[in-house]
Amino acid sequence: MIETILNRKSVRKYLDKEIEDEKVQTLLKAGMAAPSGKDIRPWELVVVTERSVLSAMAEGLPYAKMLNEAPLAIVVCGDIEKSPYWYLDCSAVTQNILLAAEALGLGAVWTATYPYEERMQVAKEQLALPDKIFSLCVIPIGYPATPYKPREKFDPKKVHYNRW
Amino acid sequence: MIETILNRKSVRKYLDKEIEDEKVQTLLKAGMAAPSGKDIRPWELVVVTERSVLSAMAEGLPYAKMLNEAPLAIVVCGDIEKSPYWYLDCSAVTQNILLAAEALGLGAVWTATYPYEERMQVAKEQLALPDKIFSLCVIPIGYPATPYKPREKFDPKKVHYNRW
Repeated sequence: MIETILNRKSVRKYLDKEIEDEKVQTLLKAGMAAPSGKDIRPWELVVVTERSVLSAMAEGLPYAKMLNEAPLAIVVCGDIEKSPYWYLDCSAVTQNILLAAEALGLGAVWTATYPYEERMQVAKEQLALPDKIFSLCVIPIGYPATPYKPREKFDPKKVHYNRW
Repeated sequence: MIETILNRKSVRKYLDKEIEDEKVQTLLKAGMAAPSGKDIRPWELVVVTERSVLSAMAEGLPYAKMLNEAPLAIVVCGDIEKSPYWYLDCSAVTQNILLAAEALGLGAVWTATYPYEERMQVAKEQLALPDKIFSLCVIPIGYPATPYKPREKFDPKKVHYNRW
């Protein structure tokens, strides 16, 4: 488990290979196992596999061009009427999905829509989201096309003991 | 790994037992393995084991009274000058730490300080944080005092295919 956390990396190139439905279900379950403030669970997940929808999002989202090759994307959304802090809970959902992808031999990357007004608008239009549903991010997912190495990011200078 | 994600739960009662330093280091490494926008890594982590500091935070934070019993807390902070979206990156850090705790046989819980002005002020004062360093949350950590069961949170009604 610790290995999986340390091995997770952003994967942006994918094989032309579908993701098994069982794996998709595991990703969704992992996502919804996240904690949330007051256990409100304000999340909603959109699973995108239709090529036309993936391409339309790639077209509109500047940092999500890899959707053109990805066989799958999960769009992590929150219901802003349920929680004003939906974006924190949904970040935990996203991290769970990214880790589950790594554990399943898949590659994925967090491409932000929130808090960018124009990117959220692209997701809203392409996915027909209701007004109260905001997207946090689009996660393209696929089998990695090439081997990826995780970055070593631990920095002891960022650790403080008992006070700054 | 998937099991660990599904088994993670909020643990609020702890044994009176110190956490081994090796485990603390693993929690910190797991935290810093999180992704961040543009790979900016705006996080800073404060490890708190001094009883007086834990108690002072318990006193000031309404939902973190369990700090009175916890042998350890990690306060996840962000440098707001490095990234305006530090709280999203730091949410991924927090989730990694919660999962690593579960994997190590520890129990932990996300107690929010951000976006609550008065709670952030408590952390700032007790930890002597510089003005540009905001706390996202305080994570009390310890060996669970009682067995905890994870909640079943998967809800198929929250899954949408290709569009809402």
